[in-house]
Amino acid sequence: MFRLKQMAIDTLGEHVVFIHEATVRDGNLGFKPLDRVRIRGGDREVIGVLNFCRDAIVAADEIGLSDDAFRDLGLREGVAVEASLSPAPRSVDLVRDKLNGRRLDDEEFCAILRDVVARRYSKVELSMFVLACALKTLDRDEMVGLTKAMIATGQRLDFGAGPIADKHCVGGVPGNRTTMVVVPILASLGVVVPKTSSRAITSPAGTADTMSMLARVDLDVAELRRVVADVGACIAWGGAVHLAPADDILITVERPMEIDTEVQMVASILSKKKTAGATHALIDIPVGPTAKVRSLAAAEQLAALFRTVAGSIDLSIDIVTTEARGPVGRGIGPRLEALDVLAVLRRDPDAPLDLREKSLYLAARTLEMIGAVSAGGGYRAALDALDSGAAERVFERIRDAQGRREPPPAAAHRATVEAQGDGRIGAIDCLEIARVAKRAGAPAHEAAGVRLLRVVGDVVAAGEPLFEVHAQNETLLRDSCAYATARPAIVQYGF
Amino acid sequence: MFRLKQMAIDTLGEHVVFIHEATVRDGNLGFKPLDRVRIRGGDREVIGVLNFCRDAIVAADEIGLSDDAFRDLGLREGVAVEASLSPAPRSVDLVRDKLNGRRLDDEEFCAILRDVVARRYSKVELSMFVLACALKTLDRDEMVGLTKAMIATGQRLDFGAGPIADKHCVGGVPGNRTTMVVVPILASLGVVVPKTSSRAITSPAGTADTMSMLARVDLDVAELRRVVADVGACIAWGGAVHLAPADDILITVERPMEIDTEVQMVASILSKKKTAGATHALIDIPVGPTAKVRSLAAAEQLAALFRTVAGSIDLSIDIVTTEARGPVGRGIGPRLEALDVLAVLRRDPDAPLDLREKSLYLAARTLEMIGAVSAGGGYRAALDALDSGAAERVFERIRDAQGRREPPPAAAHRATVEAQGDGRIGAIDCLEIARVAKRAGAPAHEAAGVRLLRVVGDVVAAGEPLFEVHAQNETLLRDSCAYATARPAIVQYGF
Repeated sequence: MFRLKQMAIDTLGEHVVFIHEATVRDGNLGFKPLDRVRIRGGDREVIGVLNFCRDAIVAADEIGLSDDAFRDLGLREGVAVEASLSPAPRSVDLVRDKLNGRRLDDEEFCAILRDVVARRYSKVELSMFVLACALKTLDRDEMVGLTKAMIATGQRLDFGAGPIADKHCVGGVPGNRTTMVVVPILASLGVVVPKTSSRAITSPAGTADTMSMLARVDLDVAELRRVVADVGACIAWGGAVHLAPADDILITVERPMEIDTEVQMVASILSKKKTAGATHALIDIPVGPTAKVRSLAAAEQLAALFRTVAGSIDLSIDIVTTEARGPVGRGIGPRLEALDVLAVLRRDPDAPLDLREKSLYLAARTLEMIGAVSAGGGYRAALDALDSGAAERVFERIRDAQGRREPPPAAAHRATVEAQGDGRIGAIDCLEIARVAKRAGAPAHEAAGVRLLRVVGDVVAAGEPLFEVHAQNETLLRDSCAYATARPAIVQYGF
Repeated sequence: MFRLKQMAIDTLGEHVVFIHEATVRDGNLGFKPLDRVRIRGGDREVIGVLNFCRDAIVAADEIGLSDDAFRDLGLREGVAVEASLSPAPRSVDLVRDKLNGRRLDDEEFCAILRDVVARRYSKVELSMFVLACALKTLDRDEMVGLTKAMIATGQRLDFGAGPIADKHCVGGVPGNRTTMVVVPILASLGVVVPKTSSRAITSPAGTADTMSMLARVDLDVAELRRVVADVGACIAWGGAVHLAPADDILITVERPMEIDTEVQMVASILSKKKTAGATHALIDIPVGPTAKVRSLAAAEQLAALFRTVAGSIDLSIDIVTTEARGPVGRGIGPRLEALDVLAVLRRDPDAPLDLREKSLYLAARTLEMIGAVSAGGGYRAALDALDSGAAERVFERIRDAQGRREPPPAAAHRATVEAQGDGRIGAIDCLEIARVAKRAGAPAHEAAGVRLLRVVGDVVAAGEPLFEVHAQNETLLRDSCAYATARPAIVQYGF
C-alpha cells in the first residue's frame, strides 16, 4: 500500500506514475522503468507508465501521479493505493493484427479506441495504431468502423433536427481562415453553426489558434451550448469539448510524425462534425502542386471517401475543390491571420481579396446545400450579409459571448526576405512558406509568422521585398530567414 | 538562463526536461508539454522532451533533467543553462521517406542511427523508424546499410584475428538456454567465446536474465575483457557493454510492439556479433508451428538474409535449423531455466535430455565450422568436454570471474495445471506457454514462470498434472493459471 501524491507535473494527458527506486528494489515488486502499472484505490483505478525516482521526488511509501493521472483517478492526496504491473490492453493484439494486414470490424475499432481514450495505450502503441491505419489500406467498411468508433467513444452535442451547418477544410493551405468569415455570414442569415476547430497539428496555425487571438476558445460543453443558444454560432476549440477524444489523443502522435493519411483525416473530420451535432457539412478540398491534395484525381478519390463514410453515419455533405497556388490571405501565423480575418469582416479596402472571395463562395455553397436560399441565390445572400456589416456584427457578438480578447502586439523582431527572381508570381510553395513561419515560432509564439508583401499574380523584380518574417527573438528570426533565403523556389515565377 | 538541477528520476535512457509552468508562461517561451527542447551550457548540450511542473518539483529559475539527461549533459548542478525549442532532427525526414517507400543508402541509415544514439529521437519517432523497417521491405543493400550503421554507431571489441566464436538463436522457443551449455563446452576446448546476450524482449527470459541467476552479467567492457582473458569466455549482458547502442534503444520500442521483423533481427544479431569481436558465428533457427519461424521455407529465406549480410561485413557464419515442437528443457523463467542449465552441466540423471542434446549438437557444429576439430569430429569432442566435467569446471570459473551469485529460492506461490485431454503430447504451444510464464511474473520476478512436468513425447491422461506455475503472489498465480486453463490447446495430443 502506498500514499497517493499529486506530482505537479503536466504531461499533456499522458499518465505518468512516480515510485521510489528503493521501494521497487526492497519490495521485489518486479517493476522496470517505463513499465505499465495499474494504480488502484477503492473502486477507482488508472493505468500509467512508470518512472523511478529517489528521495527528492517521492518518499519510499508514496506513489506520485502526474496531473492528468491524478485527476482521472479522482482520489485525494494521502489515501492508500495499490500498484501492480498491468499487461498491455488486449486490443493491442488487434493493432498488431492490423499491422499484419487483417481486416478489423466495427467492434474491434471500438475496443481499440475505448482503450485509447482510457489512456491505456503507451506512446509506442498509439504510434503503432496510427501507422497501421496509415500504411495498411483500410477498406470502406473499416473506414466506417473507425469513424463510428470515434463517435461512440466521445460525447455528442445535440442542437435539434437542424439544419445544423458545419464546414471543414482538409488543410495544407497556410492562412486559409475562411471559417472565421463563413460562420458569421451563415449565422447572420439565421443558420445555426456550432463550429469547433482544431489547433495547429503540423501547420503554423489552426483556426482555433487564430480565433484565440480575438476571443477565448477553450469553451466547455456548457459554455459552447450557451454561446450557440445566444448568438446562433460559435468558433471554439474542439479539444476542450472532447467531442472525439480518441482523435485528440491520436493527434498527439500524428503531429510529430507529420503523417497525414486520408483515412485518419476522413474519420477524424466526419466524426467531429457528427458529434458536434451537425446535420450538414461543407468540405473544402484545396488542390495544388504544394497543397495537401496535389491533383484533381486525388481530390475526387478523397471526395468519394468522404461521401461513403458520411453516407454511413447519416450526415449530409457537399464537397468543393478549390484551387491552391499559394496561401490564402497575407498573414501566416495566429496573430497575422487574425488581422486578415478582421480586415475582411470590416470591409477594409486593403483586405485580402482571395480570403474574401473564397469565404463568400463557401458560404454560398453551404446556404444552397441546406436549402436556406434557392439554388443560385447563395452568393448574393452571402455578399449582402458581409457587405451590410451583418456578418461583422455577429462575429463581434461571438467574440463577446466566448470572451473577447484583443490581438497581441506585433512581434518585436522583423526582417524582409527579397525576391531572387523576376516576373509574375505564379505560385508560392504552401509547404515551404509554412515551414518558414514555423521556424519563426508560429504557432507557439502567437505574433510570429510570415506576412506576404506580394501574392500570386503580382509582378516583382529581383531584390524587391517578397515577405516579412515576424519573430519573438533574433535567433528564431535569423534561422527562419536563412531557411527562406536558401530556398528561392518557395516563390515560382511564370503563369 | 536557468540553474541546472538533477531530478533523481530514472526514465530508462529517455531524456526528460522539467520546467516550471509559470516560467514558460511569463517568459513567453512558447514551449508546450512534450516539446523537444535543447538544454545548453557552455559547449555541452542535450536534447530532451519537456514536462511542465509546479513549485513542488522545480523552482521558477531551474531546469530539471532526468538522470540520463543530466549524465549526458555532464555539467554540475547549479550551473547556468539555456533552453530553446529544438526542431526534429533532419534524419526524421529520411524515416518519413522510408515510410513512403524510398530506398535509403548506407550514409542515410548512419545519419538516422547517429541521432538515435544521441537520444534526439522521441518515442514516436523511434516507433516510426522501427515500423518503417518492419512494414516497408528493405532490399539487400539497405539491410547491409542498416547493419553497418549499427556497427558504426557503437564501440567494438577486438580479441585478435581468431577464430573468435559466437552463437545466437533467433528465439521464439521458451527455455532454450543452449548458450549457457555451449559456451563452456567450447571454452573447455580452447575456443575463445566472448558471448554477450540480451535480456528478454518479448519472452519470459533472455539468456542474460537466466545467467544473472548464477552470476553478475552487467559487465562493462574492461570487466568483459578481463573475464575473457582469464577464462577464455564469458556469458554477459550485451546492454551494459553498449556494443550496438542504436539497437538497444530501438528495442525499447520494439519490445512493447511485440513486432519481430526479419530485417531488424538480422541487422541486430549480426552487428552485435561483429562488434563483440567474433570472426565466426553459429545461428540457430528453430522451426515449428508455434515458433518464431513457422516453416522450413521461411527458415531458408531467413538464412539467405543472414548469409547476404554476414558476407558484406566479413563475418563467417553457419546456420542450423532445429525442430521446435515445444519449449527446450523443463523450466521457463529465469530461475527455473538456470536450474535446467546447472543440471545439464552437472550431468544430473534427470537433467533435461533435449537441452543436453541440442547443446551438444550446436557445440559440435561450431567446433567444425571454425576448424577446431576435423569434419565429423565435433559431436565426440563436445560430448567428452561435457561428460568429463570440463565444461562444468569452465562454467564455474566463468561464474567466479563474473561474480558468483546463487539462484534465488523457489517462488512461494505454486499451482499445478492439469491435462484436459488424453494421449501422447505432440506439441506444446511456444507462444502460449510463454504467455503463461509472463503472466506469472517472468522475467521481472526471477523465480516466477512455468515448470513442465510433462514434455513433448510423454503420454498423459486427462486430469494428470501437466505443468506447475510459479509466482510471487496469489494474484499473479491465479491470473496465470486462469489464462492457461482457458486455453486447453496449449498442449496438443497426437504424433
